Amino acid sequence: MKYEQLRRRVYAANMLLPKYNLVTFTWGNVSEADRNAGVFAIKPSGVSYEELKPEDIVVLDLAGNVVDGELNPSSDTKTHIVLYNSFPAIGGIVHTHSPHAVGWAQAGLDIPCCGTTHADYFYGTVPCARHLTQEEIDDDYEMNTGRTIVETFTERKLDPAFVPGVLCSSHGPFTWGKNADQAVYHAVVLEEIAKMALYTKQICGEAKEAPMRYTQKHFMRKHGPNAYYGQKK
Amino acid sequence: MKYEQLRRRVYAANMLLPKYNLVTFTWGNVSEADRNAGVFAIKPSGVSYEELKPEDIVVLDLAGNVVDGELNPSSDTKTHIVLYNSFPAIGGIVHTHSPHAVGWAQAGLDIPCCGTTHADYFYGTVPCARHLTQEEIDDDYEMNTGRTIVETFTERKLDPAFVPGVLCSSHGPFTWGKNADQAVYHAVVLEEIAKMALYTKQICGEAKEAPMRYTQKHFMRKHGPNAYYGQKK
Amino acid sequence: MKYEQLRRRVYAANMLLPKYNLVTFTWGNVSEADRNAGVFAIKPSGVSYEELKPEDIVVLDLAGNVVDGELNPSSDTKTHIVLYNSFPAIGGIVHTHSPHAVGWAQAGLDIPCCGTTHADYFYGTVPCARHLTQEEIDDDYEMNTGRTIVETFTERKLDPAFVPGVLCSSHGPFTWGKNADQAVYHAVVLEEIAKMALYTKQICGEAKEAPMRYTQKHFMRKHGPNAYYGQKK
Amino acid sequence: MKYEQLRRRVYAANMLLPKYNLVTFTWGNVSEADRNAGVFAIKPSGVSYEELKPEDIVVLDLAGNVVDGELNPSSDTKTHIVLYNSFPAIGGIVHTHSPHAVGWAQAGLDIPCCGTTHADYFYGTVPCARHLTQEEIDDDYEMNTGRTIVETFTERKLDPAFVPGVLCSSHGPFTWGKNADQAVYHAVVLEEIAKMALYTKQICGEAKEAPMRYTQKHFMRKHGPNAYYGQKK
Repeated sequence: MKYEQLRRRVYAANMLLPKYNLVTFTWGNVSEADRNAGVFAIKPSGVSYEELKPEDIVVLDLAGNVVDGELNPSSDTKTHIVLYNSFPAIGGIVHTHSPHAVGWAQAGLDIPCCGTTHADYFYGTVPCARHLTQEEIDDDYEMNTGRTIVETFTERKLDPAFVPGVLCSSHGPFTWGKNADQAVYHAVVLEEIAKMALYTKQICGEAKEAPMRYTQKHFMRKHGPNAYYGQKK
Repeated sequence: MKYEQLRRRVYAANMLLPKYNLVTFTWGNVSEADRNAGVFAIKPSGVSYEELKPEDIVVLDLAGNVVDGELNPSSDTKTHIVLYNSFPAIGGIVHTHSPHAVGWAQAGLDIPCCGTTHADYFYGTVPCARHLTQEEIDDDYEMNTGRTIVETFTERKLDPAFVPGVLCSSHGPFTWGKNADQAVYHAVVLEEIAKMALYTKQICGEAKEAPMRYTQKHFMRKHGPNAYYGQKK
Repeated sequence: MKYEQLRRRVYAANMLLPKYNLVTFTWGNVSEADRNAGVFAIKPSGVSYEELKPEDIVVLDLAGNVVDGELNPSSDTKTHIVLYNSFPAIGGIVHTHSPHAVGWAQAGLDIPCCGTTHADYFYGTVPCARHLTQEEIDDDYEMNTGRTIVETFTERKLDPAFVPGVLCSSHGPFTWGKNADQAVYHAVVLEEIAKMALYTKQICGEAKEAPMRYTQKHFMRKHGPNAYYGQKK
Repeated sequence: MKYEQLRRRVYAANMLLPKYNLVTFTWGNVSEADRNAGVFAIKPSGVSYEELKPEDIVVLDLAGNVVDGELNPSSDTKTHIVLYNSFPAIGGIVHTHSPHAVGWAQAGLDIPCCGTTHADYFYGTVPCARHLTQEEIDDDYEMNTGRTIVETFTERKLDPAFVPGVLCSSHGPFTWGKNADQAVYHAVVLEEIAKMALYTKQICGEAKEAPMRYTQKHFMRKHGPNAYYGQKK
């Protein structure tokens, strides 16, 4: 099997989605890029997690040409390509329809940073990208979905390393990370903080933002040069 | 065992209801029709999923006569018959009391299409059928339940192939598909989108509808002549 | 072991509470009466479900004297006694702190009959009993808890065979049935309909009642002389 | 292995957090003090529960010096130290990000005592400690987190034996007990009552407080000189 290590990692990361209750049926996909080889590997379209095998994973180049694999890649493949090409520091991407994140996406609202659970991984608000126009849908729906994500980060001057995820209006979340495993980790976090923000709103009437000093402290104690969470590597 | 293949399929599809957490106790049933043979098979009434066996499945003709089987068929059998007779393209039906779909049914409200999870399987609003009158209940409750469903689709000019499910006011959901497995699939989808629509309402104050262009794009990329989701069959 | 069959049934019924996710830790108890022998058996107080054994079940007479057993009976034992003595047709009782039923009890509100799931087992509203006074608490908290339940049924002219459960204000639910198993069944139903009624309120602003004709039809198709749900016994 | 019994107890108590669904990933930690030895043991920072071993548990003195262990202790270690030094009667501490408790913490609100489930373990309101100032964060975030907890109990004249837990604004809950196991028990209770209080608010518009006589009765029947819940020890 060519690209065996990459395929195995992407297979294993995909299998984390049902483990963490992030997907129903086939409603999610994970990819990982090998930047040196100029390729990425992604789940095939519409294959159930119960039947998925490492050799089913499809390998493509970053122009979207299938390099290896028998099956059709995920229908969201072009969205992944736009993100890999626009965010050079990321190495893995996840898309799910996890229900609380979808709730915010369907509401068309950003998820405010309500507390330290959020701030430990997302440095502030998780943005909600705008709707595509009819023209953008007709032209290339999946590619333009990626472009609205990039547009959102550009216009709001957000760094994808500090905000490793986004909501797409009326659709759902994408997350990313340095590799597929970390992208899945962020997908779990995003669902959890989407849920906690909803609870907060239900309890006090608004998804109350944490003070900026809390967001800064918690993000920086886990990330950046002076991070002190976890073990010395 | 007569109708062995049909019975095994219907048994297996019924056993998916507890697997997907769609039923408590015996609160659900699945049937599948064999259109060539002019029969359908359905769960027996009040038998627990832990004790259900393939040979317990009851086979009836589409006039409601038991063709084979020892047990009483589901108390909702006549509703299934009306749907099979009125919607000739469907081959499987599911009834559950899944809690979020029941929430909408008890509210007496349609579920708006709030996003792509919904639009991938239901082309627009999931309708809520009206209450039966006292006369309709006294006459034949289960048959008239089926008739109000058909009335809803007729009056609203809905195609059961595009909207594979319905809510019955103060009661709960029915879904259908080309066979029993697909009807179960749609029952899972319906519960999930009922939940997501509620979250959306809780987050922004309304179960905000997705733009029609989103509904159209997502339904059509999975269904119809130009569908490109999944693998070539 | 004396009363072995009774103890085994009560043990098994108690073990259904964790199976159906109705209890956290020791927050629940089940009893069953042997009316001919004039005794009932109940879970011991504060014993975890992981450690509970059939021989731990305590047997008492209906005056509250321990007839057999080494351990202290449930702290709610006197509530059970009042119910057995006041409702001669019941043979099993369950108390839990299942969260949605507790939500309604803490709100101090009846659960309206919002649909057929409710009406299949409870013929109308599940009542919420009033608070005890300081005097009633000081006198005998657990016995007076039972008395407020009986008072509620007497004043509202409710038949415990038609409404097999109650909420106690600021506390939680009690359910009953012809035996321990049926009382557990009703405890599961009560939690499920408490949840569905909340969802209904969240969706349309009120826990909308089903038309009385629906309540009547569904209760009577399962219960009473002309019931036709299930299999002939 | 030094401090083997203490380490094994702390390891086992930590492993209860995933068992009771209180943690996602590494978002929680448990410690236990050996008051005679003047030490306490705590989970190492950022180690997953799937990989955690008893020998990974870190032992420190109550001034914060590592006495035994190879790994970095939890990033919340100083918060534990302040609590052990200020609340001499406690022997175990738990921190989690359990979602409903976090919802109240993010709302910045106390959890009122809405019923007997709460009153069985918390004698009244669970307080929410104030935000830290910028100076307090810069000075020593984790130590000052502990100090705001102590300040809350001092100013409100609360006894940590009667109210075995707290919320930290925009962050989450800490609970404690006579040992690690009891602190975990209280963490489970806190999540459960945070959820029930939210349901109560959703049902009747407010997290309605139970009458004080209920809180008193239930707390005292489980705790204090005249307690009669459970078995004679």
